[in-house]
Amino acid sequence: MRKSKKKLTLLFIFSLFAINLFGSDGTGINILEKVTSNSRSIDMIWVLIAAFLVFFMQAGFGMLEAGLTRAKNAGNILMKNTMDFTIGSLAFWAIGFGIMFGTDKLGLFGTSGFFLSNANPTSSSGLWTYVFWLFQAMFAAAAASIVAGAVAERTKFTSYLLYSLIISMIIYPISGHWIWGGGWLSKLGFIDFAGSTAVHTVGGIASLVGAIFLGPRLGKYDSYGKPKMLAGHNMPLASLGLFILWFGWFGFNAGSTLSGLNKGLGLIAVNTNLSAAAGAVVSMMLIWIIYKKPDLSMTINGALAGLVAVTAPSASISPASAVIIGTIAGILVVLAIEFIDKILKIDDPVGAVAVHGINGIWGTLAVGLFAQAKYGQATGAGAVNGLFFGGGLHQFKIQLLGSLSVVVWVVLATIILFGTIKKTIGLRVSREEELKGLDLGEHGLESYSGFQILN
Amino acid sequence: MRKSKKKLTLLFIFSLFAINLFGSDGTGINILEKVTSNSRSIDMIWVLIAAFLVFFMQAGFGMLEAGLTRAKNAGNILMKNTMDFTIGSLAFWAIGFGIMFGTDKLGLFGTSGFFLSNANPTSSSGLWTYVFWLFQAMFAAAAASIVAGAVAERTKFTSYLLYSLIISMIIYPISGHWIWGGGWLSKLGFIDFAGSTAVHTVGGIASLVGAIFLGPRLGKYDSYGKPKMLAGHNMPLASLGLFILWFGWFGFNAGSTLSGLNKGLGLIAVNTNLSAAAGAVVSMMLIWIIYKKPDLSMTINGALAGLVAVTAPSASISPASAVIIGTIAGILVVLAIEFIDKILKIDDPVGAVAVHGINGIWGTLAVGLFAQAKYGQATGAGAVNGLFFGGGLHQFKIQLLGSLSVVVWVVLATIILFGTIKKTIGLRVSREEELKGLDLGEHGLESYSGFQILN
Amino acid sequence: MRKSKKKLTLLFIFSLFAINLFGSDGTGINILEKVTSNSRSIDMIWVLIAAFLVFFMQAGFGMLEAGLTRAKNAGNILMKNTMDFTIGSLAFWAIGFGIMFGTDKLGLFGTSGFFLSNANPTSSSGLWTYVFWLFQAMFAAAAASIVAGAVAERTKFTSYLLYSLIISMIIYPISGHWIWGGGWLSKLGFIDFAGSTAVHTVGGIASLVGAIFLGPRLGKYDSYGKPKMLAGHNMPLASLGLFILWFGWFGFNAGSTLSGLNKGLGLIAVNTNLSAAAGAVVSMMLIWIIYKKPDLSMTINGALAGLVAVTAPSASISPASAVIIGTIAGILVVLAIEFIDKILKIDDPVGAVAVHGINGIWGTLAVGLFAQAKYGQATGAGAVNGLFFGGGLHQFKIQLLGSLSVVVWVVLATIILFGTIKKTIGLRVSREEELKGLDLGEHGLESYSGFQILN
Repeated sequence: MRKSKKKLTLLFIFSLFAINLFGSDGTGINILEKVTSNSRSIDMIWVLIAAFLVFFMQAGFGMLEAGLTRAKNAGNILMKNTMDFTIGSLAFWAIGFGIMFGTDKLGLFGTSGFFLSNANPTSSSGLWTYVFWLFQAMFAAAAASIVAGAVAERTKFTSYLLYSLIISMIIYPISGHWIWGGGWLSKLGFIDFAGSTAVHTVGGIASLVGAIFLGPRLGKYDSYGKPKMLAGHNMPLASLGLFILWFGWFGFNAGSTLSGLNKGLGLIAVNTNLSAAAGAVVSMMLIWIIYKKPDLSMTINGALAGLVAVTAPSASISPASAVIIGTIAGILVVLAIEFIDKILKIDDPVGAVAVHGINGIWGTLAVGLFAQAKYGQATGAGAVNGLFFGGGLHQFKIQLLGSLSVVVWVVLATIILFGTIKKTIGLRVSREEELKGLDLGEHGLESYSGFQILN
Repeated sequence: MRKSKKKLTLLFIFSLFAINLFGSDGTGINILEKVTSNSRSIDMIWVLIAAFLVFFMQAGFGMLEAGLTRAKNAGNILMKNTMDFTIGSLAFWAIGFGIMFGTDKLGLFGTSGFFLSNANPTSSSGLWTYVFWLFQAMFAAAAASIVAGAVAERTKFTSYLLYSLIISMIIYPISGHWIWGGGWLSKLGFIDFAGSTAVHTVGGIASLVGAIFLGPRLGKYDSYGKPKMLAGHNMPLASLGLFILWFGWFGFNAGSTLSGLNKGLGLIAVNTNLSAAAGAVVSMMLIWIIYKKPDLSMTINGALAGLVAVTAPSASISPASAVIIGTIAGILVVLAIEFIDKILKIDDPVGAVAVHGINGIWGTLAVGLFAQAKYGQATGAGAVNGLFFGGGLHQFKIQLLGSLSVVVWVVLATIILFGTIKKTIGLRVSREEELKGLDLGEHGLESYSGFQILN
Repeated sequence: MRKSKKKLTLLFIFSLFAINLFGSDGTGINILEKVTSNSRSIDMIWVLIAAFLVFFMQAGFGMLEAGLTRAKNAGNILMKNTMDFTIGSLAFWAIGFGIMFGTDKLGLFGTSGFFLSNANPTSSSGLWTYVFWLFQAMFAAAAASIVAGAVAERTKFTSYLLYSLIISMIIYPISGHWIWGGGWLSKLGFIDFAGSTAVHTVGGIASLVGAIFLGPRLGKYDSYGKPKMLAGHNMPLASLGLFILWFGWFGFNAGSTLSGLNKGLGLIAVNTNLSAAAGAVVSMMLIWIIYKKPDLSMTINGALAGLVAVTAPSASISPASAVIIGTIAGILVVLAIEFIDKILKIDDPVGAVAVHGINGIWGTLAVGLFAQAKYGQATGAGAVNGLFFGGGLHQFKIQLLGSLSVVVWVVLATIILFGTIKKTIGLRVSREEELKGLDLGEHGLESYSGFQILN
């Protein structure tokens, strides 16, 4: 018996030793720790790379907006583009991030984390906050950039800086808090995976209000109210803009998993691609039927409409549904641009309201129609079935409520914002400056020095 | 003895407990599962990011092709570029992917997986299919895009849409199946790591047939048959196109491992870079010697030739071999462009046949010459030695057979394709439209509205 | 007892079996090996993707430099851009990498690893060398590209090729060895995380010497020595250049961890972004105050100055410090450009000396002022406190010494380099060619064929 005991003890020690040997890599680091650290690194590099891609969308917005407007305002729009990103980055660091993701107050806004005060370099979660901030800052900047196109070619530079600051710092973060920051909409089960509402509806509706407050560009409508086409000056730039935006959108949507370990990354990227493709093809065909010519700028807007519309549902739907959503987006964007331009007589030089506003709403509602639990489970977007897949109207109503609430919020906030600016420093450049071009008037530069430019 | 038994049982239980303790992270998830899941995620994010990079090559093709052609056709070529990607994406989703990667039939084509029916969100392999599809769809689009340059400035838009659809949906997937989809060439041991044959030869040979069917642009050859240079309108765009393509090519080649765990990723990227560099330098020097001036567009084509040529062998060769392959590619592309332009009198505005066709073949054969087993083992491309490294002619013959078969297939298929289109709806725009420019004729747009354009 | 022994033996075997079962995945591969392999893959894909992003900066430099100079020289600058990268890649492969990272000789230069001879496909470390080489080659090319802007519009193409070769092959690698290759500065504890000194000061100071040797462009200074503005020809291109550079800079800085497992990747990216944003905003405001108009090219330079300045300290400082460093960079770049242009009367067309030289020095010194141990610990940049955080002047002195030494080295080396070229083949194109444009003179091309260009 004693011998047996000894042996048992030996075996026990051996067993512990074996496990210990196995459980460490010889340097005393536990294997589980290494595995967890690998997982954390996968998340980190995925979300960072996605953030870089979303950053690059700024170049896309810039090229698109500059390309679709006139040469005499190209420098101005790129200057605005640069400034809304840079001022927006600083504002989102100081204030916006805290309002959007800080400790929730009444479901309405956050109250902590200003100046990245909740980040720190000594803990995993503190280090993650930097990654998360970068990704979110890029989204805030995108929302502000959307507006630049709608108010192009006539907005005072100072006024632009001011409203763009307020959007990045306050307006976007507040509705963003409702949706992604633990606010009331997120508690209701509102699904806006990558921001059809949070980013695009906000940007698109602010565009609408801005364009109304500004009024149309000189020469846009003749004395009978008939719209005139003020052609964009550089279609290769605009095309490049589309491709850069599409490229960045893979980061926008698939990065919104906030995790490289997410098993549905591929599905999200495929849906993104197919909806954009369908949007482009359908817009082209529709405009071809209406105007007898397949127009490039409308095709570009069709692809963008598909991208905007699939942004909310991308993680909850099948690829076939993505094609349908993109198809409808491609039709909607053409009709909406025509309606806004010809019936409402609102001058939106690049179609930002139709692309981001209307299709932001459409994409948000589409979640309530096309969501399938098995897709949402794979991506973590939520096990929800939409109306067409046996889920009834439950989710659709939430989506409708969320979309409407954000529209109302942005309409009210931007009416105050643009109204105040208009009453005080003024929104619009002088008639003379507008005719001469904002490049010369606002910045004293020619964007294409040496080229013979006719208008 | 009973006591001993009890102790043994206790130890046994303890042992299991210890292992379980160690083997799970306390939430019941086995550590091995986490490790495997990490590995899967590494693969997924690598291939997705590579797919995004390959997507971005569309912008590269667009800028390159637009830049190297005339201003009056810039919008048209970008429209084509947008449409071949979008229509191609949908066609590859519906049909192409199934033909290329579906269940093999006689080694010739696949027969399942249409509309992504073999993907699903509930299994790891089903989720992987989305990732794999995205990567492959980008490749299909690249093949179609290559042709756009060769047929630029004179092809009817409708005809373009049609042939580009057929290439993405049928022609490319069939030879793709032979090479990558388990078809007869893959069974023979044909090595085309990232697609010198599957993508570039297909695109380049379709370019050749298309350019022959179309005939030269008006004014390209004078009445004595002497070629005239129809200069590209925007060299900065063309340069940007090169850099975007090169950037994307890192994803094209290193992503073709289809795994982020592949140990040879760095080798592949280094080979890609060095071959491109050598191609550019050598093309520049050669053209400098011939024409007394170092020409930018030829240098761009030299870099692209190096990239195309290294695409097949990139995972099987040493960096020194990559430099040699790029050097030869740089010479070949200059000679081939001259030969096609001056001797064959085929008008290929951007040099697509020489860059993608000739160098696609050269790169494919180069595997049979320069492959070294130790490199192919590190990357998983296959433990093959080429002629120069003791492997004899065995692999070279397979490469030659593969390359020839694909050339024959594409020649036959595109003769039928372009021939049928020519006989029915017609391939070419009217003389009047060609002179005026396809931007106005096909799309009713000016790409550079406001600029004084002379031709 | 015998039975007990048997059972013990059985248990022992079971125990081993259980551990083995657990410790392998059934194919005999140890779990620890898989975890380590995952870690290695995370490092590899991170550094490769970062290298791709840094590669893409070549497009950024090209677009920026072309956009900020005149149309008649656009093709020339893009040709130079293409060639410094391609020739530089080959030179860095053959010689530069060995000098920079080979076995240290006296702390001054490396002596092994030429032609990637220290890489091999059969070991992990050999395979890592490819990854490391690619990342470093992109850095070497960046240093050479910086100079292109300062010597734009007047440098002979042949001379350009020559000096750019020498910079990539010898000058950059030698000081690079001091800093990153185990040379004397690295032994002193000099901190230049991502290359404010190693890349930007080297490029910026070489720019200064080059611009002095060349003299100003014709028409830059009137007979009274008053500088004239020779406006850039394409501001959208220049803006695109900024965005591409910024995008690539995330790889430049966060990739300089050389590891995807680094826990501070997010911090580095955030610092990079905030410093750039602050630089842009402050430069814009300052130039607005001085010239009454917010200038786009100066804003672009402000953002770049912020990026250059944060490159060395990005892994050692808080985001608030990054904002301060960027703010000072934004002021410095405006003052330095004015000083160089108006007081020193050195013609630097794109402001490369101020952006890369002055701010490279500023960023390097900033480490000695703003470093905080807790940040440097998180990123592995070193547990150092700067002057403002209780560390006294210790680190500042090292930074000053390092920065000065590299300035002296580059000044001496490039005086010899540019001096020799000037004395032999000549540095500058003829007066006639300069007036006509280098595109025609050096390359026989028009960058914008068909456009009416006035100067």
